[in-house]
Amino acid sequence: MNAWYMHPLRVRYGETDKMAVVYHTNYVTWFEIGRTSWIRNAGLSYREIEERGLLLPVVNLEASFIQPARYDDEVTVYTRVIEFTKVRIKFEYQVLLGDQTNGGTTVTCTDETPAGGKLLAKGTSLHGWIDSDWKVVALNRAAPDVYELLRKLSSGEAE
Amino acid sequence: MNAWYMHPLRVRYGETDKMAVVYHTNYVTWFEIGRTSWIRNAGLSYREIEERGLLLPVVNLEASFIQPARYDDEVTVYTRVIEFTKVRIKFEYQVLLGDQTNGGTTVTCTDETPAGGKLLAKGTSLHGWIDSDWKVVALNRAAPDVYELLRKLSSGEAE
Amino acid sequence: MNAWYMHPLRVRYGETDKMAVVYHTNYVTWFEIGRTSWIRNAGLSYREIEERGLLLPVVNLEASFIQPARYDDEVTVYTRVIEFTKVRIKFEYQVLLGDQTNGGTTVTCTDETPAGGKLLAKGTSLHGWIDSDWKVVALNRAAPDVYELLRKLSSGEAE
Amino acid sequence: MNAWYMHPLRVRYGETDKMAVVYHTNYVTWFEIGRTSWIRNAGLSYREIEERGLLLPVVNLEASFIQPARYDDEVTVYTRVIEFTKVRIKFEYQVLLGDQTNGGTTVTCTDETPAGGKLLAKGTSLHGWIDSDWKVVALNRAAPDVYELLRKLSSGEAE
Repeated sequence: MNAWYMHPLRVRYGETDKMAVVYHTNYVTWFEIGRTSWIRNAGLSYREIEERGLLLPVVNLEASFIQPARYDDEVTVYTRVIEFTKVRIKFEYQVLLGDQTNGGTTVTCTDETPAGGKLLAKGTSLHGWIDSDWKVVALNRAAPDVYELLRKLSSGEAE
Repeated sequence: MNAWYMHPLRVRYGETDKMAVVYHTNYVTWFEIGRTSWIRNAGLSYREIEERGLLLPVVNLEASFIQPARYDDEVTVYTRVIEFTKVRIKFEYQVLLGDQTNGGTTVTCTDETPAGGKLLAKGTSLHGWIDSDWKVVALNRAAPDVYELLRKLSSGEAE
Repeated sequence: MNAWYMHPLRVRYGETDKMAVVYHTNYVTWFEIGRTSWIRNAGLSYREIEERGLLLPVVNLEASFIQPARYDDEVTVYTRVIEFTKVRIKFEYQVLLGDQTNGGTTVTCTDETPAGGKLLAKGTSLHGWIDSDWKVVALNRAAPDVYELLRKLSSGEAE
Repeated sequence: MNAWYMHPLRVRYGETDKMAVVYHTNYVTWFEIGRTSWIRNAGLSYREIEERGLLLPVVNLEASFIQPARYDDEVTVYTRVIEFTKVRIKFEYQVLLGDQTNGGTTVTCTDETPAGGKLLAKGTSLHGWIDSDWKVVALNRAAPDVYELLRKLSSGEAE
């Protein structure tokens, strides 16, 4: 089973807009923080992946905004992988109100929909692996170790 | 026929990221600039609409990223309305490389796909009308004049 | 003695620019996060202060950039108050490389210059108290409890 | 006489915060847009300068915030050079309410303080020339043509 990974955040003042709620593009920034955390939790660092000449830009993005977050709110970004091939990876996100990580450490939960909080936003992002010349690469050839690690995590084989 | 509205922009330094291209959330910010311009071109000001107690937050967002924009590039944001009811409005966007407005003034074009430039990104945003208490409102009752103006423009009746 | 307050942060991808380092305005955003944390640590919430009709906009800002921070770096924002009157408050900041909070909890240090890390940036911000009509207010009259609490902390009387 | 260079901008929705005014770091972003425009007006492109391996990061920044700008406001960023050596360049900025460029084209004015508008913010930024290894360089040796052009403009010799 493919687990959600949780990352807590506190809303910054500059992330609000004149409606007194979080400006919508910031949820998309939080998605990125969620997936960076997911990758770091996998034992990798996205920075190191880039240092090996691999980039993972966003190809497609989808987001729904259900309830607004407000300044100083604590929120939790839930991230999991819902599609994984040698050339692409698709993440799913849910942003819930409140710090749901129970004491600062990160935990995982396997529920289809993370329970226990008000859902603020959700979405997906599809990414493709490219090299530094922006050419498409197959991850299993370009970095077999990274491929294998992400594959296991994406399928829920690894913890 | 529902026309595209063009708005030119120049890429800011702070909009780039370490891949040396525009960070993806900034395209979503540009979408917002596109629809604000579209509304202004309609003879309205989104600020005035808000001053009348009406808000139009993003409910759903979809974006595809085709080619990266780079620092100092001139780009043109094309915006048009593809869905319009008394409670909702949906915008479509295309971001093309180059200032395609021919001399600083805004023009419209009616092609399905705006020609004459490299497509960088495209997307849609769905919005719902609410009042200052975040209650859903029907625009035709809350502001009949705004409703009528936007309806005409969205259907392509008005110029 | 007026103590520094520490707040750890991790550099977000979108905070970098095409020089592959943190775009300079983000340090200024981090300053704000530092002072918000400082206020929260004081037992107050800046959100609650605003809900009482008091705003604390930036009047003056000064920043020096010594070494660049990079993507995924952990940094620590040090914040302390260096000037406090009934109408104004001035914060001082230092941003050091690395998470220096020793295990996620916040600590204070009293050194003139926080030791143990590479200094990335430093600065000050001066703020004035205003009401929701943007009129200057004297904090000791408008909110004596807030004034007294901040005064003690600013002078180092309270812990 | 060292002339001010004018660049008009319109306030973006996402640049506002919950005080319903422009979040302060965005003025600093506008300063950057002002100096990029100043350089472009000089017949140079900052992008091309970077492509020649020269970077011009901000070393020091100072800003004062006098009156808030609001969503959809048109503002004009005035930029001029107030210090120029072979290793450093210092810009001064004033942000005034309203588009003061008279019809979309850029003009210069030589007044000490640009007249004719409400002053919103002002500031300075000091920059140092470095190469791609972040080593300090002397511009007159690294790029004599750029040095000469900027020197003339900074001293007001060229138009």
